[in-house]
Amino acid sequence: MAKEKKVEQITDMEVDFAQWYTDICRKAELVEYASVKGFTILRPYGYAIWENMQQLMDAEFKKTGHVNVAMPVLIPESLLKKESELVNGFAPECAWVTMGGNEELEERLAFRPTSETMFCDHWSRVLHSYRELPMLYNQWCSVIRWEKTTRPFLRSREFWWQEGHTIHETAEEAQAETEQQLNCYADFYENVLAIPVVRGRKTEKEKFAGAEATYTVECMMKDRKALQGATSHYFGDKFSRAYGVTFTGRDNKLQYPFQTSWGSTTRMIGAVIMAHGDNNGLVLPPKIAPIQVIILPVAQHKPGVLEAASALRDRLKAAGVRVQMDDSDNSMGWKCAQYEMKGVPLRVEIGPRDMEAGQCVLVRRNDGEKTVVALDALEAAVAEQLELVQKGLYEKAKKNLDEHTYAAYSLEEAKELQEQKGGFIKTMWCGELECELKMKEQAGMSSRCMPLQQEKLGEVCACCGKPAKTMIYWGVAY
Amino acid sequence: MAKEKKVEQITDMEVDFAQWYTDICRKAELVEYASVKGFTILRPYGYAIWENMQQLMDAEFKKTGHVNVAMPVLIPESLLKKESELVNGFAPECAWVTMGGNEELEERLAFRPTSETMFCDHWSRVLHSYRELPMLYNQWCSVIRWEKTTRPFLRSREFWWQEGHTIHETAEEAQAETEQQLNCYADFYENVLAIPVVRGRKTEKEKFAGAEATYTVECMMKDRKALQGATSHYFGDKFSRAYGVTFTGRDNKLQYPFQTSWGSTTRMIGAVIMAHGDNNGLVLPPKIAPIQVIILPVAQHKPGVLEAASALRDRLKAAGVRVQMDDSDNSMGWKCAQYEMKGVPLRVEIGPRDMEAGQCVLVRRNDGEKTVVALDALEAAVAEQLELVQKGLYEKAKKNLDEHTYAAYSLEEAKELQEQKGGFIKTMWCGELECELKMKEQAGMSSRCMPLQQEKLGEVCACCGKPAKTMIYWGVAY
Repeated sequence: MAKEKKVEQITDMEVDFAQWYTDICRKAELVEYASVKGFTILRPYGYAIWENMQQLMDAEFKKTGHVNVAMPVLIPESLLKKESELVNGFAPECAWVTMGGNEELEERLAFRPTSETMFCDHWSRVLHSYRELPMLYNQWCSVIRWEKTTRPFLRSREFWWQEGHTIHETAEEAQAETEQQLNCYADFYENVLAIPVVRGRKTEKEKFAGAEATYTVECMMKDRKALQGATSHYFGDKFSRAYGVTFTGRDNKLQYPFQTSWGSTTRMIGAVIMAHGDNNGLVLPPKIAPIQVIILPVAQHKPGVLEAASALRDRLKAAGVRVQMDDSDNSMGWKCAQYEMKGVPLRVEIGPRDMEAGQCVLVRRNDGEKTVVALDALEAAVAEQLELVQKGLYEKAKKNLDEHTYAAYSLEEAKELQEQKGGFIKTMWCGELECELKMKEQAGMSSRCMPLQQEKLGEVCACCGKPAKTMIYWGVAY
Repeated sequence: MAKEKKVEQITDMEVDFAQWYTDICRKAELVEYASVKGFTILRPYGYAIWENMQQLMDAEFKKTGHVNVAMPVLIPESLLKKESELVNGFAPECAWVTMGGNEELEERLAFRPTSETMFCDHWSRVLHSYRELPMLYNQWCSVIRWEKTTRPFLRSREFWWQEGHTIHETAEEAQAETEQQLNCYADFYENVLAIPVVRGRKTEKEKFAGAEATYTVECMMKDRKALQGATSHYFGDKFSRAYGVTFTGRDNKLQYPFQTSWGSTTRMIGAVIMAHGDNNGLVLPPKIAPIQVIILPVAQHKPGVLEAASALRDRLKAAGVRVQMDDSDNSMGWKCAQYEMKGVPLRVEIGPRDMEAGQCVLVRRNDGEKTVVALDALEAAVAEQLELVQKGLYEKAKKNLDEHTYAAYSLEEAKELQEQKGGFIKTMWCGELECELKMKEQAGMSSRCMPLQQEKLGEVCACCGKPAKTMIYWGVAY
């Protein structure tokens, strides 16, 4: 018996960050590749993380009056074409259904790349009066975008997401909704995923196809690259007009509602991996960890050990902790490595000597810190340690963000900082596309966002020297 | 102000059951048609019912060790073709993706009609040892089957469902799983949806394409037609062999695991409509009702009424009841009709006279029964009345099932009973396809199932007079 499984090795992040990332995705059993090129499978452990994210986020959406719906997954090409910017943005990466059963379809149908068109089409049929506004809808589903190169969670042909779509009586209400949902995402990143974000507005070039304004939460990974965390869009009445969505207003006249949409995806799992992971594997914030505490009995063949470990598990379960015990015949070394790989935030060890001393040992995943705890203080100690892991992860990520955000006053300086240090480079900007393109071409950076919290670094654009309109963040992005 | 909305009328079920059904689907705002032919939109109220069903069922699945995953939605044709019965069963109704972006695909991809193939393909890559068995997977998603004629919830080109897929070390374990999940569905129908079911096995003709055995829960609608509620399949090792899924057994030899799958769909909402609805609209079992209690203030302009009604709402909310209050300026008549249409199980009315008497009035949706309740007994009374609604619905549906299940001893008698009474006709059966086809052609009935709980009605088949092998249920099905 006791055929020892080998401990899986992963590439060091300092050696090859991309390979380190892929190794964690596979070895922590989050995803697996499928027979369909560019598609991935969310395995039980990966999906359990997603379920925890969904549950917490969905509850927040509902608190502010949003309701869930399900729209058809296939969109007729003619419907998609009604709003020209949207179709230009998405048609090149649609998957097209051209046959139903054995019959060629008269009109091809796009697998939804996003559902503004379906929501608008629906609203054009069901909306009548201002009394029915706002309509605050959301759906959890998968979408397809036919990407050329793919990476688990970050870019894959199918991904899972939520897409919120709302319509409002006035522009002000819709703008407030856009902002509220941006803040909802920011709070989720910071308080749940333990990842600090920069809130800001996208440039014209980077905004969502068809939106009047796109807002984003941008975060920084351990390799100092930027990751767009989630986006919230304001559409004005552009789509309403294109799709004929109208209502009778308070003035008894036909009006067009104002619209928003906002989305976040399974990419958040990728963000968690790259914001918190280390060379031993995944590190999960307790709030989304499928297993928050793993209990490992030490010398489990000795009398009473398994019973003692089970008792701890039962107590923690009763306290609402997501806890498991591993009493398999694998070695202690293998078990520790395995649950480190899976990013379990807290390990509890108990063996004969601990039992004698009426204690157990708590080990934090994020910093390896050990705490010896009296058995009767278990629940409080576990709650405290989980809180410390959550906080520790946030602080470390915040330090990474703060220490790698630099101000630059010329394109050359920006380029040099990016090459030598990496991270976010903030500059003043004139607002012209030309300078944005120049930064991309010459310094390899895209604009990340114009932060809502502005700083005045100077009077002129770092690229062209003309009067500046705004402060902007640049970075190399996923 | 107070522009009175008109109360929506629906067709009487005795006049036109099909139209009555469609009317409820639309007027209770459960679904809406989409721009894509044969597709439907689940609106917020319909989706909220589905969410409640999902939550309760998912919790049951997890209690028995099942975990959720997400498989790709597109299946390469070659993969689908590896198991011939399955592909013959499903290929004629697949939607096919033939283009990705602007490129013609080398191989067309089916939008999943069901995912046995994807699960098997995945297991063929990740399964190694008997120690990893069983794998108890489930996914919540939508599937497409390109039906010619469609009806909301009952038959639509896209529908939402859960599909469980499991593999086991032994045939016995897989058979036990098939049975366990059948019972899980039966309990869900009876205890949650308040719909009694007949548990049984499908005939060879009616079983799932590729399954060794299909089990079903069959229920009876108010028009006495049958509805297949959910199914649970045993595959033996047929798919494992077709897809090369193997593991190293306890004997250190390569073996094929034994497999099950089981599914239930948004069709359950259709079942609820047709099992409990009446000529005033939907009637929802409290366990799945998005609004369990609606509070209607009477003479709400009178001093203190709104405050009193709000207080009741807050108390019920605190007690964990899904409760809403309607203080809009619509008339009492309109409101009553509206919440009856939406099937809200319990209405609470409170007005100035009730306040004086320290009471409120509870009205049950299912039978109109009124109960006057002292205000300080509100929580207990509401819990009791909701329980009575749940029980009352089940009992009425059970009566319908029992009173319209008839034994027949010849094909002619079976036919006559179906024509004159409707419902389930039970007979003895020889087990031959020929007799099953004859019953379909001559009496217009399909076999529903061979009940697990058998009765011996006689010695010979009702169709051919040869020795009978089993008792079987026949019916006209949705």
